[in-house]
This record gives sequence, structure tokens and C-alpha cells, in this order.
Amino acid sequence: MNSKYKVTKFSSKNFNTTEDLISIEEPLEISLKYKLEDKWINQNLSITMRTPGHDEDLVTGFLFNEQIITSLNDIESIESYGDKVGQYNIQNKILATIVNSENVNIAKIKRDFLTNSSCGVCGKSSLDALEIVKKNKTHPSEPKIGKEIIIQSPDSLRDAQSEFSKTGGIHASGLFNINGKLIDLREDVGRHNALDKLIGCALKNSQLDPKSQFITCSGRLNFELVQKVLMTDIGIMIGVGAPTSLAIDLANKFDITLIGFVKRDSFNIYTNNKKVIVD
Amino acid sequence: MNSKYKVTKFSSKNFNTTEDLISIEEPLEISLKYKLEDKWINQNLSITMRTPGHDEDLVTGFLFNEQIITSLNDIESIESYGDKVGQYNIQNKILATIVNSENVNIAKIKRDFLTNSSCGVCGKSSLDALEIVKKNKTHPSEPKIGKEIIIQSPDSLRDAQSEFSKTGGIHASGLFNINGKLIDLREDVGRHNALDKLIGCALKNSQLDPKSQFITCSGRLNFELVQKVLMTDIGIMIGVGAPTSLAIDLANKFDITLIGFVKRDSFNIYTNNKKVIVD
Repeated sequence: MNSKYKVTKFSSKNFNTTEDLISIEEPLEISLKYKLEDKWINQNLSITMRTPGHDEDLVTGFLFNEQIITSLNDIESIESYGDKVGQYNIQNKILATIVNSENVNIAKIKRDFLTNSSCGVCGKSSLDALEIVKKNKTHPSEPKIGKEIIIQSPDSLRDAQSEFSKTGGIHASGLFNINGKLIDLREDVGRHNALDKLIGCALKNSQLDPKSQFITCSGRLNFELVQKVLMTDIGIMIGVGAPTSLAIDLANKFDITLIGFVKRDSFNIYTNNKKVIVD
Repeated sequence: MNSKYKVTKFSSKNFNTTEDLISIEEPLEISLKYKLEDKWINQNLSITMRTPGHDEDLVTGFLFNEQIITSLNDIESIESYGDKVGQYNIQNKILATIVNSENVNIAKIKRDFLTNSSCGVCGKSSLDALEIVKKNKTHPSEPKIGKEIIIQSPDSLRDAQSEFSKTGGIHASGLFNINGKLIDLREDVGRHNALDKLIGCALKNSQLDPKSQFITCSGRLNFELVQKVLMTDIGIMIGVGAPTSLAIDLANKFDITLIGFVKRDSFNIYTNNKKVIVD
């Protein structure tokens, strides 16, 4: 499932505004209904950021892979609620009812799904929570970044990575000043961890200066990554790959300039192109 | 951080066994200590699959980005426990003690970190849980797969994806029979969701037949993806990108043949090369 978004494309030394199809990223709340000592229990299991479509397959596979069910026969019904696509709030819920609760590993569910949470997104009940705390937008037109700096930054990041050339399998996030100088970088097999490490390092070393900096990430750009950058008040974010719909929506809301698909001589600006020097 | 792993490389029409550096993926348990009504509370916040190194930066950035702290001054200390690298069990824990609990958003922590969990890995307290339930290995030498089938499968998957050509930003997982015929595929912005959807769909349509099938995923291969394939009893797993250390360890343990870095005329076999036809 995808949706059209406005995009300013730099290519062949020119800027053009057009429309691109963007993969939709949206929260889905997965709940489980099962019988325990003659009582029906309704329990939230997980909130996952997924592309809408085949949600029944998703919850079936999730329950099977998590060993909550052992076969399809354990599921009595799967009901979906809500159908709003493109909304911040969670409108989409899916409830799986288990036919034979003897097959449900209650201890496992309680241990795995009640005691801990996870990466930045999962466990959240609504994106509203973020927006209440974070009221300030980034500066709508500052700092300004040049197109050469944008194009160079993924290469600068890759050149400075100590691990990528060795394993080819690790993400990085880099903090840059607006002239393209790499201030610091962190690497991790998880994109969100690389960015958490970078921001933690920048806090520790008092390196953050949002008025004159941007952040570049090695992979695709999703909601979670934009959310983390938002916390730093840095207003320009660059990714080597594609953004999701929710990454664009969040960047748009807070005047973050989101740039993706950076190649040798081209890139796409998805939000707030005022911070990119176009001449 | 990386580690040497044995790998059988197919390239220039030949197989060679050598060693490659693999990025380490390993669980880290993040806990928080804070004061509530004169009592010290010790609370697990998250288990994340990360590359060891800069763990202090990771927890600092995580707490800041999750808005649990508002500045570095809120942290009194960060202590690390355990130093075993390359172990399945969680030996690595990190405890952040908050100096000024007035700054801790208790309601937020309780809401976000006590009620829900997440993707397959987060929320787990130990990888042992998986292994206790799943005792059976896959067949050590069956089915056999040819090198042309391995090389073709990422292209077959991409050609059949309806979304990738439109957005360039979506993952896919495909179920194949051993002759390279694509049985079904599912797409999602999240790798783990695409695989959950595929397995859910295969269960629903009674498509699973581990004796004659393999699964191909579009991106890198991490622990979580191998864990999901393990549940299907399918013994061959192919990825376009690099595997993590823990993906290799898990595949090795259950005799899954793990193949990565598949290109036009080359690929790497990381575990159990007995299922690949080498002549």
C-alpha cells in the first residue's frame, strides 16, 4: 500500500517538484482474547509499525512465530477495527480470539508481553504522546544546506565507518555541521540503536548545536528515526534510502527537512525544501 | 564490533571456504533506577538487539529520545554488568540511575514500558525460551538447492513485488519451492512484518511443506528473521544482504542453511552448506 507525496527532486543539476509514491507505515495494535479460568481475558500484545494490508496474515504469523498458537486451528476469529489510513493516531486494531485456551502459553505471554518493552515505537499507545511533550517546531528556514553537502554526506559517513567496510552489514548515523564536516558517528546492526548511540554521544560531549547541524542515516527513514532526531531539535535529516509515509508526516509537522534517496548526483527533498539552497 | 565466521563463498563458478568478518548482534537489557516516594525502584525498560560497544551512549540516547530524561544531568550513573560477547543468554545489562526523579515521567514509563511489547525480540528475557520449545532441528541435508536457484530467487522476489518498483522502500519475504518457483510473497516496510505476513498466509492457505521449500528475504538477516523461519521448520533461508552474528549462531544451532549477499554470480553460505549442490 502506498500514497502520493509531493517531492522536490534534484537531478541533472536541476530541481523539480513532482509527486512520488511512498510506502505507507502505520501503527497496528494487536490484541488477544483468550479464556483463563472461565473468564475471557482481553490483552494487548503489541503495537507494530506496518504497511496496511494482509493484517490477518500478519497477526496469524505473529501469533504462530511467537509460539502463542501452534496451529491455525487455535484461532477462532480475527476481527479488525478501524480503517483510517494516513492517521497519526492508532485507528487500526486487530483482535485475535483463541478457540482453545489450553494451547495458549499464558506464562509466556505474561513474561514476554507484560514486563518489557522495546524499541522506540512499540509499546506506544498513540503518537499524540510525543506531540504533547514536543511542541516546538524546528526553525522553518535555518540552517541552510547546500546540495553538494547533501550529496557528499553519505559518502563521508561511509568513509568514516570503521565497521562497514569489514562486514557490509551495519548501519550508521552521523552528526554533521552544516559545512559537511562529520562531527561524530555511531554504528550498530540496528538503525535505531545507531541513532540512539549518536545522540547519547552528542549529549555526553555537548556536541549538539541544532542551529548549524544535520544528521545523516545510512538506511531508509522511518517514523522512529525521525522521532529521535526531533528530540535533538536538529531540523535537517538525510537518509540514503526511501522514507516511509509516517516519517514524512512527522517531519512535515515539525518543519524538519527530510531528504532521501541520496545518490552521486541526485536526491529527493520530501518536506520543507526551504532549508536547501537551490541556486 | 565484529567476529570471524567461517563462510563458503560461491564466486566465479567456484566454491571456496574462507573466513569473513560479521557484525555482532547481541541482546542488551536496559534498566532504570529511580526514586518514587522515597523508595528506589528498579525497573527493566527494554531489551534491544544491538552491536556491543558504546552501550553508555546507547542508554543515554535511548532515555533522552524516549523523553525519560531531559538532560544529561538527570543521570547519576550508568553501570554495566556482564561482558560475555557471543553468548545466547543475556549477560549484558546496563543500569541507569536517575539523580532527580522529579524529572522522570513515571506515568509515561508505566504506560509505555509496562503495558505493551513489540516485535519478536524485544520483551524477551532470554533466548533460552525459544530453544526450550523448539527442540527439533531442520533436516541436516534436505532439501538440496542448486546455485542457480539461489541466485535467481532475489530477482524472482523483486519481479513479483507489486510495491517495490513503485516506492523503492519496502521489504519482502517470499516462499519458494526448491525448484525456484515463487509460491507466495508478502511486503511491508518492516522486515519482520513481511515475514510474519508470509508465514501467516502460508498457514492460512496450507502452503507450508518444509521438505521442499526455502524462504528468501529482501534485506539483511538478523536473529529475529531466522527465529521466525525456524518456526516453520523450513531449513534453507536466503537473504540479499549480510547476516548478523546471532542470525548465524541460531541458524547453525538448528541446521538451517543460511545464505547471504546474493548477487548476479555470487553468494555466501554461512551455515550448513550440505544443502547446497556444489557440483
